Amino acid sequence: MYRMYRTLAVIGTETVMIISLKEGERLDDLHRSNYKIIQNPCYFSFGMDAVLLASFADIHKNEKHLDICCGNGVVPILLAARHPAASFCGIEIQQELAEMAMRSVAFNGLENKISIVNGDLKNAANFFPASSFDAMTANPPYAAPGSGLENISKEMAIARHEIACTLDDVCACASKMLRFGGRFYMVHRPTRLADIIVAMRKNNLEPKTLRFVQPRTDAPPNTMLIMAAKGGKPQLNIQPPLVVYGADGKYTPEVKGIYYD
Amino acid sequence: MYRMYRTLAVIGTETVMIISLKEGERLDDLHRSNYKIIQNPCYFSFGMDAVLLASFADIHKNEKHLDICCGNGVVPILLAARHPAASFCGIEIQQELAEMAMRSVAFNGLENKISIVNGDLKNAANFFPASSFDAMTANPPYAAPGSGLENISKEMAIARHEIACTLDDVCACASKMLRFGGRFYMVHRPTRLADIIVAMRKNNLEPKTLRFVQPRTDAPPNTMLIMAAKGGKPQLNIQPPLVVYGADGKYTPEVKGIYYD
Repeated sequence: MYRMYRTLAVIGTETVMIISLKEGERLDDLHRSNYKIIQNPCYFSFGMDAVLLASFADIHKNEKHLDICCGNGVVPILLAARHPAASFCGIEIQQELAEMAMRSVAFNGLENKISIVNGDLKNAANFFPASSFDAMTANPPYAAPGSGLENISKEMAIARHEIACTLDDVCACASKMLRFGGRFYMVHRPTRLADIIVAMRKNNLEPKTLRFVQPRTDAPPNTMLIMAAKGGKPQLNIQPPLVVYGADGKYTPEVKGIYYD
Repeated sequence: MYRMYRTLAVIGTETVMIISLKEGERLDDLHRSNYKIIQNPCYFSFGMDAVLLASFADIHKNEKHLDICCGNGVVPILLAARHPAASFCGIEIQQELAEMAMRSVAFNGLENKISIVNGDLKNAANFFPASSFDAMTANPPYAAPGSGLENISKEMAIARHEIACTLDDVCACASKMLRFGGRFYMVHRPTRLADIIVAMRKNNLEPKTLRFVQPRTDAPPNTMLIMAAKGGKPQLNIQPPLVVYGADGKYTPEVKGIYYD
């Protein structure tokens, strides 16, 4: 499967690797370490949530990290740019997206740092050893299955709605794959906060840090970032909200820093 | 017990009611409907949290309301000022505080609107019919029993620490005393958010509205206001944060409005 999109060619005296873009795909800049990402807007394009999650996750030297629901691999690639001394894995159920992620990893020369698996997170322990990760991230589908599914592709529906996995599946996977004390970082919608906390507690993940993201200072949050520790003690630290736009309608300095620093 | 602190006297040709302050007590202004409150700083003085809770609670015409852990009665008295067409009950386990609340109710001429009971909220159904309230409020003890109890009085310890009642007792009482669909408003510490959501869900109270209170725009919240509906459907609405102090170090217009409007 891997060889389908990565071929070797001899040009002059040099052997080069050719990574092809498929129809509808484009190569976007990640503004970090000169890394690029392959995207197909019909399937999935990363948004601000992935960037915020990669910035929120605090990965230490030599740690092993797993990103679940990894889509086109944007989160592990952004994390590898921020934390060059850690190693990353990603798991994605949709074959097209997992292949896109593998090609982006290869394009950026990150094959020794990032491994992408095409598989179901419910079977993550078939691909990686259980309790072996120091940290994990997830940008899972936000919406319960049902409404609003009519006018989108099957690929987008799986990325956005709890069709292939539920919140409980996501938390159960994190609990299974993290070492004791390991950290699980997730981006989600504030409307699901009660569901998230209950699913985490049920799966022995204790919410430790919570940050809401607001479009403006006086607006309600539309995004939330949460970190839970496997087997942690109850005590939730709520950080000051992250405000996206200033009074001038432009990104606040903090958000600019997250994107470009 | 009631007659201990309320006596009738004849002054000239008029019969008047005399409500006495005990040693250490003082009469404070509530800045609403000219109502006053009897306080004893050795036992308990109301703070901003009670004022925020009374403003957060949305009570409708002719509704029946119960305030648990009512202390010196500040929340039902503030609510009666805001919602003159509703009726209020309060329950407080500490006899001194419950008596103080009864005297404040009498002082403000609110005996037909507010009933105070000296009792344990775990037995609330001995004092009021179960499932009979449209709305409830609680400003319960915030801290788990244990640390920091050495240098405070027994009365303060009971008001601040989960000694006489736990978060689960508070939620179980709300679930028992509210009608189906009834609203439970609580003020608490953000560090306990996960405990609160889990205790609410366990007791069939669905968190519906959450608002954090921050000292400043860029500070983490130190207080939270939450509303849960008995038997409600999951969907949490997180409101914009309430900011207490502006850049000038003074109350923001919203907080001024909560105190004085």
